[in-house]
Amino acid sequence: MRNAFHEELDRISDQLVEMTRLVGSAMERATRSLLDADLELAESVIAADERIDLLRADLDSRAVDLLARQQPVATDLRMVVTAMHMASDLERMGDLARHVAKVARLRYPDSAVPAEVRGTVVEMSQVANRIVTKAGSIVAAKDLDAATTLSRDDDEMDELHLRVFSLLLSENWPHGIPAAVDITLLARYYERFADHAVAVARRVAYLVTGEWGHDEQSAIAGSDGP
Amino acid sequence: MRNAFHEELDRISDQLVEMTRLVGSAMERATRSLLDADLELAESVIAADERIDLLRADLDSRAVDLLARQQPVATDLRMVVTAMHMASDLERMGDLARHVAKVARLRYPDSAVPAEVRGTVVEMSQVANRIVTKAGSIVAAKDLDAATTLSRDDDEMDELHLRVFSLLLSENWPHGIPAAVDITLLARYYERFADHAVAVARRVAYLVTGEWGHDEQSAIAGSDGP
Repeated sequence: MRNAFHEELDRISDQLVEMTRLVGSAMERATRSLLDADLELAESVIAADERIDLLRADLDSRAVDLLARQQPVATDLRMVVTAMHMASDLERMGDLARHVAKVARLRYPDSAVPAEVRGTVVEMSQVANRIVTKAGSIVAAKDLDAATTLSRDDDEMDELHLRVFSLLLSENWPHGIPAAVDITLLARYYERFADHAVAVARRVAYLVTGEWGHDEQSAIAGSDGP
Repeated sequence: MRNAFHEELDRISDQLVEMTRLVGSAMERATRSLLDADLELAESVIAADERIDLLRADLDSRAVDLLARQQPVATDLRMVVTAMHMASDLERMGDLARHVAKVARLRYPDSAVPAEVRGTVVEMSQVANRIVTKAGSIVAAKDLDAATTLSRDDDEMDELHLRVFSLLLSENWPHGIPAAVDITLLARYYERFADHAVAVARRVAYLVTGEWGHDEQSAIAGSDGP
């Protein structure tokens, strides 16, 4: 039976889906600004992050309001609390996209990404995009089938992260320390973005099944760098 | 008037204080393991992080239980929700201390920190420690006086972070890319640790005063790297 509580919860869920879409688009555009040294695009990603922050603040206050007015218990209560945790993950993902755009802005008119790592950065952004798209469809449709392949995506991100370090640490890295510092941070931003997206997806799966995926700890805790 | 709700909320608050103490100690010991290349100490920090994760999981389930049983509204409700957000910050701080210890372990028997940046890393860890100690006393005693100097501590951390980058990017950095990658990540771990500690403190101040400090956005969103 649908009631006022579930209608409001649907609106919160829609807002989470919207946030998922926005942070996915932000990271995709941040990556483009980085690779193309597109200052205008970088600035627009940086400016647009405020909207994501506001959506998160709005979602939090709706959730608290819903708790106060409807006093849900059991699964309904867990859903509202989980939505707040997801909003926190999504806000952080927006921050990470903004960080990528800020590196692009800082290095303009150069690109912060030397040719040797360009392909790997493109792949990291593609995996990030795939994971956030799945997270969105899991939130929207409780489509848990999408969750089954998340571990593989997450492993792929970890491998790409390691590949970045092996490129940086190879004897013939010709770009010196400044580029190495940028790439170290960029790789971390993509990886943390993916970690939070995986966490969002797993939180839904947990609500539905009561079980975490086998490697949720590593996904939520994040990887540990090189 | 004290009642069952406030007694349980006190227990949650005590647990937050305990987590603050644990993550402060973890980061202090992680730093020591890093500077002294002390493998045993690094291993003990890594192992001890599980306790922090468990405390957070326990706090979350107590909080949800409290919401279900007592159905708080208004300020009481906001306090419980805020406690969950603080626990999330504190768990992440534990992860960051573990990340520092993992760098120490990875580079053992060498130290990951060359002599030139040793002093700056020591200062970062001292500032981190000062902030987390203040956060603990703010949570324990709603001691908002401690909150007034947090912006200064946070600025100091940002300055130290910039100093690390200027050391790395100076012409005469003699340690090559591997050490630069380690230091880039370590500096970020300390800075994020401090950001989360500032966020914990500001969440309490917000509950008490209804106002964020002037620069909460930057503290919660984190800085943007070099």
